Amino acid sequence: MTDATRHEARAFSPGSVGNVGVGFDLLGHGIADVGDIATVRRIEAPTVRIAAIRGTVTALPLEAERNTAGAALVALREALALPFGFEIELDKGIPLGSGMGGSASSCVAALVAANALLDAPLDIAALYPLALTGESVASGGRTGDNVGPMLAGGLVLATPTRLIPVAVPPAWRAVVVHPHTVLETRQARAVLQGHYGLPDFVAQSAHLAQVLLGCERGDAALVRAGLSDVLVEPRRAPLIPGFHAVKRAALDGGALGASISGAGPSVFAWCEDAASAATIGAAMRIAFARAGLESDMHITPIACPAARRLD
Amino acid sequence: MTDATRHEARAFSPGSVGNVGVGFDLLGHGIADVGDIATVRRIEAPTVRIAAIRGTVTALPLEAERNTAGAALVALREALALPFGFEIELDKGIPLGSGMGGSASSCVAALVAANALLDAPLDIAALYPLALTGESVASGGRTGDNVGPMLAGGLVLATPTRLIPVAVPPAWRAVVVHPHTVLETRQARAVLQGHYGLPDFVAQSAHLAQVLLGCERGDAALVRAGLSDVLVEPRRAPLIPGFHAVKRAALDGGALGASISGAGPSVFAWCEDAASAATIGAAMRIAFARAGLESDMHITPIACPAARRLD
Repeated sequence: MTDATRHEARAFSPGSVGNVGVGFDLLGHGIADVGDIATVRRIEAPTVRIAAIRGTVTALPLEAERNTAGAALVALREALALPFGFEIELDKGIPLGSGMGGSASSCVAALVAANALLDAPLDIAALYPLALTGESVASGGRTGDNVGPMLAGGLVLATPTRLIPVAVPPAWRAVVVHPHTVLETRQARAVLQGHYGLPDFVAQSAHLAQVLLGCERGDAALVRAGLSDVLVEPRRAPLIPGFHAVKRAALDGGALGASISGAGPSVFAWCEDAASAATIGAAMRIAFARAGLESDMHITPIACPAARRLD
Repeated sequence: MTDATRHEARAFSPGSVGNVGVGFDLLGHGIADVGDIATVRRIEAPTVRIAAIRGTVTALPLEAERNTAGAALVALREALALPFGFEIELDKGIPLGSGMGGSASSCVAALVAANALLDAPLDIAALYPLALTGESVASGGRTGDNVGPMLAGGLVLATPTRLIPVAVPPAWRAVVVHPHTVLETRQARAVLQGHYGLPDFVAQSAHLAQVLLGCERGDAALVRAGLSDVLVEPRRAPLIPGFHAVKRAALDGGALGASISGAGPSVFAWCEDAASAATIGAAMRIAFARAGLESDMHITPIACPAARRLD
């Protein structure tokens, strides 16, 4: 059976650290050990329907247009004027409102699975705008810092029109600590309303530049000088109990930097290797516990693999 | 005669393209064929004095503290608790209010010359904060996008505390077209007052990131995608007669991008080689002429050499 005659495909998409502190709405990387799985079937009816949502999150819209996975496949059908439809089952592995890219993960997993069912599968560049459309159902905007790295793998600068992979030393790890509390993306967006001053932009731009150049050069000192969010973190930190203590624990442990993962409440730290990531993550969990929050943690290569077929 | 017993030194500092459109107050490179020369003498009096200012600009403050070159040497004396003083003569090559870094150039030339007269000369990292102090007399802030590339050479990301050279293909050129009209830095700063929206900042950050990664990788397409200022240029362009036509001429001629040099009114365009820079510069001059402005132009490697001793 070739892909062209295949009628069902499954795909896994990792979670993600959106923003990476200094690249708001632009920079992201995957979280390898957590993600969503989509099972997609070609159906004769010219429509997209969601047959089931299982796993960590089940209270999601079943109407295709209101679900990131469904909306992405609606966009795929329209873009290619497909004569057939899709049925989707989602197995969610990413908790709702965790800041680990759950809505993007379902969207990308569904696209990668559906793509395998096309007579002429699309490349990543062609899938990207469809993923932006799907993700926009949840985020309200066409931002690619979550879907981008899921599609392309690694650390990715995701502009509205293109995905630019950024080289990262393969040993570098991110530890993502997820406190067991929910922060709604819309609430996290609301605190960003209002105006910003040019000096803060200049400082944040310098930080982003140092992180990007440091990653490409494998220069940990340059990343350490830059990985600090002076623009968004000050507004969102008050929404996350214990944030400053958690960040302090990461920096005291030798992290290259730490900030909020996506819209939070998860907090990530970048580390030079897996061993330090484990130590740093443990210290961050203790800090969350002192703030009254249970947590779990994920350690991932920053150069995380992209979403992949499972069949 | 060793440097330690030398009593007079001369140095040339190139002009500069500050901001480079997408790196407001952060990114800059030199303009090799235009600049200021400082002649500095060690004097017994524990003071800094300016003996003469000649050349393109003469109506500058002779009080050391109000002159960028003088203020830098005052800072040098204080930083090192020097028992001797300096006398400075400036030969200005950069027109006042041209947006080509004239105040920074005098400052850096004086520092490089004075440094040669020290018993233990400082390295660039140690000179940088002194140059920021000198430049602040003219700009009002500690921004290194002009003094940074003059001191270090090449394209430089200049944070308030460090200079980070950015690799650029050696063949790439900037053409800087200087219309014969003066735009005061303070006026150009005034139009930047007020607040900015987060979406504009995200767009500009994406542009800066693409320019930096494109330069490091020698990827002209990536630079072309990024070299567009959506944050500052829209506010300053109305201060420069003919700006949009000049920019259009550069882009139509195949420039990688074009924007305002420093605070203007000079306009720069990045080009892939010297021949295209000459053609593009000529077209930009014609566009300025149609707006009623005479102009001259400078073509420089973006990887412009740093300030240098002349003796």
